[in-house]
Amino acid sequence: MARIVQKFGGTSVADVERIKHVALRVKREVDAGHQVVVVVSAMAGTTNRLVEWTGQTSRLHDAREYDTVVASGEQVTAGLTALALQDLGIAARSWLGWQIPIRTDDVHGKARIESIATAEIKQRLSEGQVAVVAGFQGIGPDGRITTLGRGGSDTSAVAMAAELGAERCDVFTDVDGIYTTDPRIVAKARKLDRIAFEEMLEMASQGARVLETRSVAMAMNNRVRLQVLSSFTDTPGTLVVDEDEIVENRVVSGIAYSRDEAKITVEGVADRPGVAAALFGPLADDAINVDMIVQNVSADGATTDMTFTIARADLDRALAVLQRQRAALGFRALKPDSNVVKISVIGVGMRSHAGVAQLMFKTLAERGINIQVISTSEIKVSVLIAADYTELALRALHTAYGLDQTE
Amino acid sequence: MARIVQKFGGTSVADVERIKHVALRVKREVDAGHQVVVVVSAMAGTTNRLVEWTGQTSRLHDAREYDTVVASGEQVTAGLTALALQDLGIAARSWLGWQIPIRTDDVHGKARIESIATAEIKQRLSEGQVAVVAGFQGIGPDGRITTLGRGGSDTSAVAMAAELGAERCDVFTDVDGIYTTDPRIVAKARKLDRIAFEEMLEMASQGARVLETRSVAMAMNNRVRLQVLSSFTDTPGTLVVDEDEIVENRVVSGIAYSRDEAKITVEGVADRPGVAAALFGPLADDAINVDMIVQNVSADGATTDMTFTIARADLDRALAVLQRQRAALGFRALKPDSNVVKISVIGVGMRSHAGVAQLMFKTLAERGINIQVISTSEIKVSVLIAADYTELALRALHTAYGLDQTE
Repeated sequence: MARIVQKFGGTSVADVERIKHVALRVKREVDAGHQVVVVVSAMAGTTNRLVEWTGQTSRLHDAREYDTVVASGEQVTAGLTALALQDLGIAARSWLGWQIPIRTDDVHGKARIESIATAEIKQRLSEGQVAVVAGFQGIGPDGRITTLGRGGSDTSAVAMAAELGAERCDVFTDVDGIYTTDPRIVAKARKLDRIAFEEMLEMASQGARVLETRSVAMAMNNRVRLQVLSSFTDTPGTLVVDEDEIVENRVVSGIAYSRDEAKITVEGVADRPGVAAALFGPLADDAINVDMIVQNVSADGATTDMTFTIARADLDRALAVLQRQRAALGFRALKPDSNVVKISVIGVGMRSHAGVAQLMFKTLAERGINIQVISTSEIKVSVLIAADYTELALRALHTAYGLDQTE
Repeated sequence: MARIVQKFGGTSVADVERIKHVALRVKREVDAGHQVVVVVSAMAGTTNRLVEWTGQTSRLHDAREYDTVVASGEQVTAGLTALALQDLGIAARSWLGWQIPIRTDDVHGKARIESIATAEIKQRLSEGQVAVVAGFQGIGPDGRITTLGRGGSDTSAVAMAAELGAERCDVFTDVDGIYTTDPRIVAKARKLDRIAFEEMLEMASQGARVLETRSVAMAMNNRVRLQVLSSFTDTPGTLVVDEDEIVENRVVSGIAYSRDEAKITVEGVADRPGVAAALFGPLADDAINVDMIVQNVSADGATTDMTFTIARADLDRALAVLQRQRAALGFRALKPDSNVVKISVIGVGMRSHAGVAQLMFKTLAERGINIQVISTSEIKVSVLIAADYTELALRALHTAYGLDQTE
């Protein structure tokens, strides 16, 4: 007998029929004698509609009211899922964030979980009752509903699993696992049986959208074994586990890409100490995250060019911030470019293998793809290239690193 | 400066545009310096859809989960209405049943309000903040969401008004007031400026659907002045007030009708003491309410016929109950008839005026309308007639009692 958390995303609970299907899936684990906590998202489309309504109603956007409105979606699916389980003869009840309670900080719309009270749920689990938890939501110090931000139900599930000491946290979604890269682009992409937490974290933050970054980090920190699998098929999914649980010997595990990038080149800034701080300070003050940075070699010894990347959504705001600082920074021109993509090669095996970055540069060079910016970490090499080359680059790299599926 | 509760029904908050319109309506009272509590229903159609989903998900129907699902509708409109008010520059926040809290008993799906904590809301009202309260919902002794049953948002509004000592409770709906009878049937129906609580109570329980019976009774008991008006027009509505506030001298205030009736005649039951108890006991045990009753004069001195009415929705169940008791009751035959309508003439003036019932019988007789069952109370005369005569009877009675609109 084990304790298991099963999280079902929006497409898995899209309508009453799908919710009944979810109940059957949960029943399997119950029949196997396991204690099961089910975490549910809102029905697919519901959250978007509710968000849209709040936007149409008010430009001012009080995040507390936003949370009140948007959290209703998960409330509905939690109740319906409990009913569907009961209909199969399984004792079940729904739990809303404030009922557990899942206490969060006061950052409405993007709250962080601070504590989860589990005594009563543990008691009921031990009596054979399934707990159906509304994902994405908690209660703030002000006694009002908070939501956890994008992908928040993943975070709810992992937090519940950590707090309950669950053996596994199954994340049911509309894809059947984590792939070496996007199979819609690379036909030979391979589903991974296992992936290390750190790799998954990089994959998620570098553009792979299956799991939300925060939930992966939380799982890693709390050593919650994640499984990503599809609620539409019965095939085994991908286990996200500790690095030492991966026996396969591989250098690169996956290749991620992100189109949400924009590049800004600041031409002709003074080439002197403190210029980077002067440039990036105002951006940080405006909560604009800078990702990759490259400072060109000075041509004239007096001025230089700085190139960096930010989220594409922040581009207009970043340009405005820099223009306001023009006098202080004394640059010649700002050159924005949002026609770029960031491609990242990821693998914990890089730690003990040299030449990974070199293979990337060589492979791209052979295809005539120009690298605009490079950044590396212990287990990742990222390059920024022109967006037009996305598919070509992904396919070439996938083959070069030996990731292609073999018949 | 007064304290006012304004309740908006489902059609008044049917979409974002309507909600913005509601906010403008509320703003008027705020601008006039009043303290305003807004109680909102779910968007029109939402509750029905949620109820349908619970029915499709489970035949077993756990009322606690039902409440969790269904109460989400009012949660959405409460948040959106607060946002719409904020957008007009009015300080406002939403309050869910459990946040206030509105404490109820444990009868999920049909709960009764037991207490309302108002200290914090009063404080905020005094600071100029509008309180937007999600109607229809409370929190039970089990810490779970309860709902108040059909028309529950009216009850929420009146309960808030009573608890806050509000000067008035405005109920905004899609009709512009209480009419002497249904204007869709009687073109000369007249909107009443005022109606007494007791009359309104009879109107509501005899078929007029504008206000829910329970909320009228609560308003009467707590002397909450109600106003029924339309959120779609700017015309004054109908005030529901104490009898002594009505100066107009009238005997009959309105004529209600209900098509939700069914009649059962039990033929050939023993004409002896205790037969009524033997007949109606099993129905009461099955929670079937009997409304009108007539016992015929015995023809043979040994057996008699009993005729009574029940809600049409209970007809099949009532017949089954009686059939099971056939041996004990020893009747000859059961004759059901659901092709009937109950017409009620209502007015507190009847207390001091004789001849009201007589005029009703005479008017119907002149039109050749046969009266099947009669029941009377201090301020009401009801008759059961064949449904085909509904419109004819209503028009004739409306004229006979001098209720017709004059140019």
